[in-house]
Formats: sequence, structure tokens, C-alpha cells
Amino acid sequence: MADISVQLPDGSIQTQPASATPMDVAKGISEGLARGVVAAVIDDKIVDAVRTFEELKSPDSDTVKLKLLTRHDADALAVLRHSAAHVMARAVMRVYKGVSLAFGPTTDGGFYYDFDLPEKISEEDFPKIEAEMTKIIKAKEPFERFSLDRDKAVQLCDEMGQDLKVEHIQTGLGDQEQVSFYRQGEFVDLCRGPHIPHAGTIKAIKLLSVAGAYWKGDAKGRQLQRLYGTAFFDKKDLKAYLELLEEARRRDHRVLGKKHGLFAFNPEVGPGLCLWLPRGARVRSILEDFLRKELLGRGYDPVYSPHLGRVELYETSGHFPYYRESQFPPLFGAEAGALVDAWSQRLEAGTIDADGEDKLMAAAEVLGVSLPDYTTSARVESKRDILQQWQATNERYLVKPMNCPHHCHIFKAQPRSYRQLPLRLFEFGSVYRHEQTGELNGMLRVRGLTQDDAHIFCTADQVEEEFRATIELTKFVLEAVGLADYRVQLSLRDPDSDKYVGTEENWDHAEGALRGVLNDSGLDFGEQPGEAAFYGPKADFMVRDCIGRSWQLGTVQLDYNLPERFKLEYAGADNVGHRPVMIHRAPFGSLERFVGMLIEHFAGAFPLWLAPEQIRVLPLSEKTTDYAVALTKQLTDAGLRATTDLRNSKVQAKIRDAQLELTPYMAVVGPKEAESGQLALRDRIDGDLGSMPVAEAIAKLQKEVAERQVRTVVKTALMESESSGQELFAD
Amino acid sequence: MADISVQLPDGSIQTQPASATPMDVAKGISEGLARGVVAAVIDDKIVDAVRTFEELKSPDSDTVKLKLLTRHDADALAVLRHSAAHVMARAVMRVYKGVSLAFGPTTDGGFYYDFDLPEKISEEDFPKIEAEMTKIIKAKEPFERFSLDRDKAVQLCDEMGQDLKVEHIQTGLGDQEQVSFYRQGEFVDLCRGPHIPHAGTIKAIKLLSVAGAYWKGDAKGRQLQRLYGTAFFDKKDLKAYLELLEEARRRDHRVLGKKHGLFAFNPEVGPGLCLWLPRGARVRSILEDFLRKELLGRGYDPVYSPHLGRVELYETSGHFPYYRESQFPPLFGAEAGALVDAWSQRLEAGTIDADGEDKLMAAAEVLGVSLPDYTTSARVESKRDILQQWQATNERYLVKPMNCPHHCHIFKAQPRSYRQLPLRLFEFGSVYRHEQTGELNGMLRVRGLTQDDAHIFCTADQVEEEFRATIELTKFVLEAVGLADYRVQLSLRDPDSDKYVGTEENWDHAEGALRGVLNDSGLDFGEQPGEAAFYGPKADFMVRDCIGRSWQLGTVQLDYNLPERFKLEYAGADNVGHRPVMIHRAPFGSLERFVGMLIEHFAGAFPLWLAPEQIRVLPLSEKTTDYAVALTKQLTDAGLRATTDLRNSKVQAKIRDAQLELTPYMAVVGPKEAESGQLALRDRIDGDLGSMPVAEAIAKLQKEVAERQVRTVVKTALMESESSGQELFAD
Repeated sequence: MADISVQLPDGSIQTQPASATPMDVAKGISEGLARGVVAAVIDDKIVDAVRTFEELKSPDSDTVKLKLLTRHDADALAVLRHSAAHVMARAVMRVYKGVSLAFGPTTDGGFYYDFDLPEKISEEDFPKIEAEMTKIIKAKEPFERFSLDRDKAVQLCDEMGQDLKVEHIQTGLGDQEQVSFYRQGEFVDLCRGPHIPHAGTIKAIKLLSVAGAYWKGDAKGRQLQRLYGTAFFDKKDLKAYLELLEEARRRDHRVLGKKHGLFAFNPEVGPGLCLWLPRGARVRSILEDFLRKELLGRGYDPVYSPHLGRVELYETSGHFPYYRESQFPPLFGAEAGALVDAWSQRLEAGTIDADGEDKLMAAAEVLGVSLPDYTTSARVESKRDILQQWQATNERYLVKPMNCPHHCHIFKAQPRSYRQLPLRLFEFGSVYRHEQTGELNGMLRVRGLTQDDAHIFCTADQVEEEFRATIELTKFVLEAVGLADYRVQLSLRDPDSDKYVGTEENWDHAEGALRGVLNDSGLDFGEQPGEAAFYGPKADFMVRDCIGRSWQLGTVQLDYNLPERFKLEYAGADNVGHRPVMIHRAPFGSLERFVGMLIEHFAGAFPLWLAPEQIRVLPLSEKTTDYAVALTKQLTDAGLRATTDLRNSKVQAKIRDAQLELTPYMAVVGPKEAESGQLALRDRIDGDLGSMPVAEAIAKLQKEVAERQVRTVVKTALMESESSGQELFAD
Repeated sequence: MADISVQLPDGSIQTQPASATPMDVAKGISEGLARGVVAAVIDDKIVDAVRTFEELKSPDSDTVKLKLLTRHDADALAVLRHSAAHVMARAVMRVYKGVSLAFGPTTDGGFYYDFDLPEKISEEDFPKIEAEMTKIIKAKEPFERFSLDRDKAVQLCDEMGQDLKVEHIQTGLGDQEQVSFYRQGEFVDLCRGPHIPHAGTIKAIKLLSVAGAYWKGDAKGRQLQRLYGTAFFDKKDLKAYLELLEEARRRDHRVLGKKHGLFAFNPEVGPGLCLWLPRGARVRSILEDFLRKELLGRGYDPVYSPHLGRVELYETSGHFPYYRESQFPPLFGAEAGALVDAWSQRLEAGTIDADGEDKLMAAAEVLGVSLPDYTTSARVESKRDILQQWQATNERYLVKPMNCPHHCHIFKAQPRSYRQLPLRLFEFGSVYRHEQTGELNGMLRVRGLTQDDAHIFCTADQVEEEFRATIELTKFVLEAVGLADYRVQLSLRDPDSDKYVGTEENWDHAEGALRGVLNDSGLDFGEQPGEAAFYGPKADFMVRDCIGRSWQLGTVQLDYNLPERFKLEYAGADNVGHRPVMIHRAPFGSLERFVGMLIEHFAGAFPLWLAPEQIRVLPLSEKTTDYAVALTKQLTDAGLRATTDLRNSKVQAKIRDAQLELTPYMAVVGPKEAESGQLALRDRIDGDLGSMPVAEAIAKLQKEVAERQVRTVVKTALMESESSGQELFAD
């Protein structure tokens, strides 16, 4: 075996025997470093620090680039947590009998492992499992990797009674011949790795929750128990994380939404179908007004489109039947259509034979559907003809899952010339997706959502400028609501794939333009090759909220596909038809998710310009009722959202309630104020601001609104967890 | 026979023999009057002038109140036209063979008659039919009434070969024993009358169009041909009416909508599903903004609700299955639901037997639906149980046909106190109705419409004040768009019916309050007893457009039913639960219909505040391009909707195009204007207004917008037809 030439990050090169490991390199540098090594990065791939260079290097090279990962590297935490998942599984197998292991990946906040076992894991058992985990960690046993031929691997798993692993090796690994395992003491698990050198590196663990899950996510498959946990290099980090979880719970928009009357769901209306209550609707309508005004000022045109479209529309766009699983099923111009649809699928699939035809006729009879053309013909010449005839008379509609096809037809409704481009069509468009009930999550994951949608139709030459403008708009919109901490993910083509529509030239041009715009913008952005949709590159804004969670919000998506499918054209200066490029974009994403996120970001206390109620007038007693009412009208006339608390309560109680209800300002008025035409202004955050003329208070509040001041984010110590650069939650 | 005491409108009383007729009374006054008598009104009922008082009087009285109708009475025209329908039918029977007569009523603009005949009536035959009608009219034959026993009536119609009349006498007349006919020459028709004394009174006739129709409106019934015509007392009136029709055609919103890029329909999107193009959407959004601002100022709260709701929601509200025919059919949480639904109906109806069960299972197999609970049980204990189980797992949704059920749930989503009432929830809510394709009419009758909907929840004591406020709002809104010519129809309970929900006391109180408010308002209003919905009284605004057509727009509807069905409650001052009253109201009605109507009212030329494009800058040549662009920005920054025509054309051509595109103002700019910072303002209506400083032009336009001036309705001679008080079109 030839020696290996190992290049370190500082550029220095070491020569090592092929049997050496990254850990050996670490030891050569210092014992302290070796103790801190969590894993290694060889040629951009994270690997075990204790495997040999012979195994780790590329077969056709004797040179490797090596980086040693310690707890200070962002990538190290996931390795630690994956090992912690093994530790947890091992502990679970000690605590319970008959455990079948499924999979145990990491998540952004920790890890989980799915088990099939006869007993129900209860939260009361967590201490027992955690105690077992601590015992395993203290033993500091190493994680040892070994590989087996596939047959042997099946045999091993079978001997261990791990039937799910057997199934996975047999059906889930394609043509892979060798299968890797990790052993830690008595625990052996089918696993690709990598792992930490030994369990002692795990300094803090915590089980979080247990939930149901399905084997390989298939709702028809075996039902499993998913145990969630987290792990850290440091007890302090765990403590901060648990506090963060607690803070997130305190900010839970579902709880705050109910408490402050922002939105509601109702089983009779339907799961995931949001009712915006007056206070929440006010916030939404302020956001919509704000964005509408911006868009009109930026050369957008409003449009409105219906919430239904014929199935044919989505066949043209390609959204049907492709995305059928996530859509509400079609509805029919006539109820008999349901049968036609079912028959259509069978005919298309060629699975109807003579017997099937008889059954179909029986079905039609039961369903009360008349099939005149079919039943009157003893021998049917062309089933397809009849099918088409039926489909023509049975209109099928989808509740629209997206707005783009409608906007394409708005583009097409008039002859278009290059003089009209770019044409920017916007709509607050409500769309419907049939998410699984279990995936619904308050306003963050719903079945009905309203996108702040727009489609820009432009020439290839205009892509750069339009992209620049949409990036600028998105920045403006996010910063207006106080979200200034974000970075951009630019999703580009995989250069080795041929799945993309649109010409090579257009892609090159577009990707170059997008990169150029982002470079010019000074924004923090990263490129993700291979992450683009088949129809065009896109940019996503990843926004960090005040407790460090990252949210994918504004999206800008280029599209070469829909203009082609809808055969969109404009007359160029050359008087010849050209195909426009289409840009989808939504700075908020959806109003539901955006407002849900804002509720959590502001912990329900919206900044003044968004607050549903801005100021509440609190008369000291009934004597100042008239003045309070007149004052409220004066405030309202000044464009402020003012209310009055005329209850027969002490003013302290009124203040307490206004504070609890997160009212930004209170105007306390007693006889003194009534006499002098003043008000005693109270700030929810800063407390009593003293008496002042009404005009002064109005001017102060109007200024705060006009400047869209954000004073309501309480920066807690938790904020510091953000500086680690760690994404604790992802969408 | 006793003499009859005849009281005339002036209070005078004549004594007449029972065998005398109203015509005899007329002759007694003057021969001229007798020649002009069209019909008579006896005790508020319109009758033939040539029937005897013996026939016409009430059986238990020898006194009648008589009014003689001449062409100057509003009610006379309908009598004339009904007689003209007979004349037309008679002419048709002379022109074609094998004519079966259906019905021939009057309409607001004339009359029609439905025929079943082998030949297709073509517009080319109209002159021939009209010539025959003229011949009949010139003969001045009288209309003679006679009555027959039902059996004899059937026999007569049978002899005449009038099978539809036979069917109607046999099945359509309830327990009526005597049947009346009218004879005019060889033409005999089953008819209730009344008719003019003789055909010579008809001075002007015109056939208008021919269309398909169904026997008694049933789409499954016999298909007929409907021939439309009109008739007048005077050729001049006919001419004015035909010009009005032509004017209406010129204003057709479907034509103008296409020409000016306001809206479009597309077969792939679906019939009746409107795409609002940028210019139309701009008008709509201005109207929405205008109304939203008004509503917020008037104490309304915004809400948003989804466009889907579970079928159960509409079962609670009573809209399903009651209005099922006019709704899009339900869609299902799972496609198998279609079968469940069909089976459900069969089970409910008890029409599934053992054989049916087998067929059902065959159907399930064909449709790919798994019926585990059913198929695994050889003998089913309780089909109903299984059905319920299925329905529970198969959510069914309706695309919402109205917003009220959602708003009821918004009311219910929080505990409500009397302090919060009235609670006024508003939403621009899009709803969907499955209108028959043949009934669709541009924007005026669509399948998807957006209501400017609101629901006011209030106490019984607040009904009066809330009704007053909604009447005030509706007036304000209509007058803002220049619709100042309207009257109100107040629909009240039928005192003899017991179909109404809500207490007697509440109805008395509400009807009194509504009447009181309308009396106070000084509005022209009429009461329509018996026209109220079963759940509450309502008021409709009937608005006349500039060519005299009447449109039902703003509606205010009280509702005692939904609060009951949804069990809505608020805590009263007595701390006990009370049921609120609900008021539905929509000043526009729907945005689609309202904008469609405005397009026709303004013939596409919207007043400045609503115009999608307000001013177009027209540079004289390329030399002033820069100035034109800068000026456009200046105008835009001033809040005006300004564009620039930078084409390389003569300014005359640019002006012509701007005029044709109904742009209210043009700013012509040449070197002189560029130098002096001025613009030459051109008014689409008044022409050149000369050069002026930019600020002056901006101020002028801003003033016109702020005052919502309506300068665009061209008052033509046709307007005079309005003064006749005749409703030429109705919705």
C-alpha cells in the first residue's frame, strides 16, 4: 500500500501510511486535539475519524484533503446527535422487550428513532431511558464500523430479530452490494454513519417527546413509535435549548391566536381551513394594504381570478394529475362524473376487460348513472370515444391549488406586445391543498392559504432587472415588519442532469443574472447547485426570527415551463411572436404562514402599525365617560385604531387588562385631563409617559406608525443562541 | 238582477244595470274616452272593459270601484302586449303548420309566446309574421271571452289539436272547475285575460328574437321555440324603445369588457368563472378600497373565511341539501366518497336489496374503493352503522355558496357579550353557484361572484339603528358612483301565513322599525307584503341606470333563522344568554354584477376616480420623450394613474387612440411645454383645455377624484323614456 499524501486546511501536507486514520493525524498534532475530535471531513465528505485513509480516500488517488471536526464546527453537532440516537435506541432495547428498530436520523433540533414494540412508550418512562443512556455514555464505548455482503447483512439482522432492517436491506438499497453496520457494545445497527469516536463525547442528553409514525412514512404501513431527543456537547447548550423550546412554546401562535382572538379553526368548517377573526383579519388587511400600495407603486397590475378551474386547465399546466395527491379531488359539473373519472383511469390503464365492463354497468346502475351510449351498444367499438364524449359533458373542476394557470390565461386574454412587458400581475390568491390532517399546524401549515402571489411576464433580457426588483421588494417588505436578519438561498441547476426545460443559453443567462444581482445586492447568499426546479432557478429568503429560528419566506422563482405549456406569446419589436419568461414571486409566501410567524416573532405584541388595536382610552370613572368617548372619536378620526373601556371597573384593572391584551398604548383620562383637553399616555412597554395634549399624543403615535417602528421584540438572553449560527428549527 | 252601484275615482257614484260594462260607463262619459279605453280596474283587479258588472263584481256586494284604463295608465301597456301576444300566436299559426301553443306572457320589454312546431322559426320569417299580424290588427276584431267546464275545455283543446293546453288543463289548474278562453276570429286560446277590447288598439308591433325554451321551464321537458316581440300604443314609442335596445347593445358590458380589456372568460377555466384583467381589476379594487375604508369608518370589522366548508356546515345552516340544485356538487376528502354518497342516498331511500348489495360490491371493485367493513361481513347487521362510519372518514366539502355560515362560526369562535354588539363582520367573500350554462350572462350572471358581504349581529333593540345605518351606507355608496335614481322595495311578511321563523313580536318590531326608518329617510319606497323570506323582512334598492333600466342592487336582509340554527348567543347585561338578530347586507351586491352594470351605465367610460387609466401623456415627438416620461412619473407620484404613449406616431393618432380607449385626460407635451414645465391638457369630453402648469393640472384632476365627480354619463334623448316610469328591463 502506497503512502497517502494528506493536505490539511492550512495547506500543509503530511505523508501518512494508508493504515493511518484522521485520529492519528490529530494525535500527531496534540493529544488535546485528539480528545476533541468528533469526526473528520475527507474531500468534502463527513466521515468517522477512526477509519483508515485507505478506506476513506478516492480509489484513483493517493491524496486526500483532511479537516478535523471538533465541537466548534457547525457540522459536528449532527454527528454527535446521530450517535446519541444509537445510544437512545440501545437504551430503549434495554428497557423494553421485543423492539424492532426502524430509522433514527437527526433533525434540526436533535434526533429521533422510530421503533416498533409491543409496549407503549410513555413520558413517564423517559427518566428510566435517560438513566440507561447516561450509563451507556459514561462507559465511553467506541462506535465500531464493519461491512457485510448483502446476504450476510440480512442474515445478521434476521438473527437479531430486526425484521424492518431485513426488509430495508432486501427492498430499500437498490443494487448496493456492501452494507455497513455500527457496533457499540451489545448494540449493532445497520447504519451509514458517520459517528463520534466514542459515546463519552456526548455531554448532555434529553428526551423530548414521543409520537406516532409510519414505517417509511406510508400511512398504510406499520405504525411505529417515534421517540424524540436532543443532545449537546455541553450542558449549558442543552439548558439554553430547553429554554428556547419553552420560549417557543410561550410564543406558540396557536395559543396566542386563540387567546387574542386572531384566528380560529372549526371542525364543521373543516380542518386546516382558517377563520380570520376580526383582530387577526385586521393585521392581515394592514399587510395586504401595505403590500398592495407598494406593488401599485412598483408597476404591478392587480388581477382577480376564480377559486375554481376546469381539470383541463391543470392538465395543460401539468399540475394534474402530477400533484394529485396534495390536491382536493376534482368536483364535477354533474355527480355522475365521479364514475366517468374512475372509468377513465381504468381505461387509460387498460385494466378493463369484458368482465370489468359488466361490473361497470352494474356500478352505473347502482350509482344511478345513465350510460346511454355505452349500454345501448352491445359491442363497443371505441371505448375511448365514449369516454371523451362523457368527459365533454361532465365538467370536472379543481379548487385551485395555485394561481399561475389562471394568470397565464389572463396574459393570453389579450394580444400582447413587447411594449407591455414586463407585465406584472398580482393577486392575493387563495389556494387549496389537501395536506394530511397530521401535517396541519395552526396557521403555519393549512389546507387553504392566501398567497401574495404575482407573476411577471418579461423578455429574457428583462429577467435580471425584474429579479433585482423582486429581491429589492422582498427586502423592503421583510424589513418593514422588522425582519432584517436573513440570507438568500440561490437554487441552481445540476450541471450533470438533463431534466431541465428551457434552453441551455437561457439557463446560463438567468443563473448568471441572478448571481450577479445577489452579488451586487451585498446580501448574504449561498448557492445550491442541483436544487433548482426543473423549470427554472429560484431564490429563497431564509429569515431568522428573534429567537433564532429560521423561516423560509419570500421566494422568487423563474419559470420556462408554463409559458411553453400555455403557448404564451408576445409580438416583439420584430413583429414576430416570442415566448416570455415567467417569474413567480411572493414576499410573504402566504398570509396565513406569515402572520402565524409574526405572531410567534412578536409573541403576539404587534408593532404599532400592525396592531389591531392601537390605543385604548381608559376613563378614571363614569364622570369622564363623555370625554373618553369624544377622545376616542378624535383618535379614530386621526386614523388611529382606538377603543374605549367603559366598564365600571377601577382604572388599575383596566390598565392590567389592556396590558394583558397587548394594547400598545393606553390613554388614561380623569377630570384633570377632561378639563385641560389632555390625556395621560401609557406605553405598554415603557409605562406611564405623563399627561400631554391630545395632539401631541396623536402626533407621537402617527410618527411611530408612519415609520413602522418595531419596538415590541423583547431581546432576551436567548437571542445569544443565535450567534452560534445554528439553525435550531427549520420549516 | 239588482242594479250595481259604480264608484268612480273622483268619488262620484253611478247606478248601472248589472248587464252594463265598464265600456258602457265610458261611453256614457264620452265617445272619445270609450275609444281610448284599454281595460278597466274593478276593485283593484285589472279586467276586460267589455265584461258585465254582474261578472266582474264581488258575489256578496252590489257595489264596485271602477277605474277606466287608457294608454296613459302605466298598467295599460301590459294588457296591450298580452293581446299582441295572441295576435302573434294567431299569425304564427297562419304562417306555419302543426303549431302547438304553450304560454304567451308579457315581459318588461314586451311579450313572448312559446310554440312547439316542426319547422324552425327563423328571423328571416319575421317580416312574414309581422305582415300577418298587421293584417289581423287592421281587421280590428274583438277579443271575446268565454268559459267552459274543465271537461269541455279539454275537449275543445283536443279538437283544436292543442295537446300542451290539454295537459295544462288536466294537470296544471289544481281544483279549478271553470276555464276561460279568448276568441279572436279563428284563433281561440286558453287564457285568463284580460285583453283590450279589439286588436285595432295595437298601433306598433315588432318581433325581436327567437330562442329555445322548455315546456314549463323543465330542462327534461319538451323543447319549444320562444318568439319575442313588443308592442306599443304609438309608433313613436316603439321607435324610442328600439333605439333604447340599440343603445343597450352599444353599452353591452360583454362587448365593452373585451374591447377595453376589463375581464375575460375562458373555456379552460370554466364557464361563468370570470378572469378580471388588469383594467377591470383596477376598477374593482378601487371600489373595494373605497368601501373598505367606509366600512372601517362605520365600525365594521374585517374577517376572512375559506372558500370551502364541510357539507355538515351547510346542513346546519340549512343550505344543503335544500339549495343543492344551484350549488356545485360536493367534493370529497377522499375520492371513494363519491360512492359512499351515492350509496348513502340509496340506503336512505331503502332501495338497496340483496341484489343491489352485490352490485354495489361490484361497483366498489370497479371503482377501486375498498369496503372492508362491508365486504368482510357476509351478512350486514346494520348498513346504517357502516354508512355513518364511512361518512365520518370521508369528509365532504362544498365550494361555499354563501359566506353566512362561516361568519356565524366567527361570531361563535369567542364568547360574546352585549358590550360587543352590534358586531359587524365584513368580507369581500367569493362564493360559487352552479348556474345553468344557458343562464350565464357575462358578469351579470356568473358561477363565481364576490359579494361585498357583511353580517351584523345585534340585539333586537339595535335592529332599527343598524337598519338605518345600512340604508344610509347603501345610499352613500350608490350616490358615490353617480347612481342617485333609485327606490326601495320593502318585503314584508304575509300576515296570513305561518311559514315564518322568529317570534310574532320580533317581526312586528322589525317591520315597524324598517318602515319607520324608510319613512324618516325620505326615500321613495314601496311595501311588498308576502315577499319577505321565511327568515326575515328585507329591503332592496332598485336602481335606475342612465338609459332607464332598473337594477336590483343593495340588499338589507334581516335573519332570525341562522342565529337559531347555529345557536348563536351573547351574554346580556343580565348575564344570561340571548340570541342575536343577524342582518345580511351588500350595497354592491356582487362586484361582478356591480361592475358589469357600471360598464353599461357609463358605456365603459368610468368617471375619473374609477377610471383604470386617468391621464395619458402624449409627447409630440421623440424630442419630448424625456419630458413625457418625467411628467408621467410626476403625475404618478401625485397619486394619478398615468401612462405614456411613446409610440413613433403622430400626436393626432395618439389622441384618437386615447379617446377610443376612453382615457379621461390627455397631456400633450411639445418643446414649448417641456421648456416651461407645462402640459396641454385635453379632456376626453370637453376637448382641448389649453396649456397650464403641471401643478394646476394635478390639482384639477385630484379635485375631480376627491369629489368623485361623475361627468361621463352622456344624457341622450333616450333618457326621456325614463320619465314614463316604465321598467324596460328587470334583472
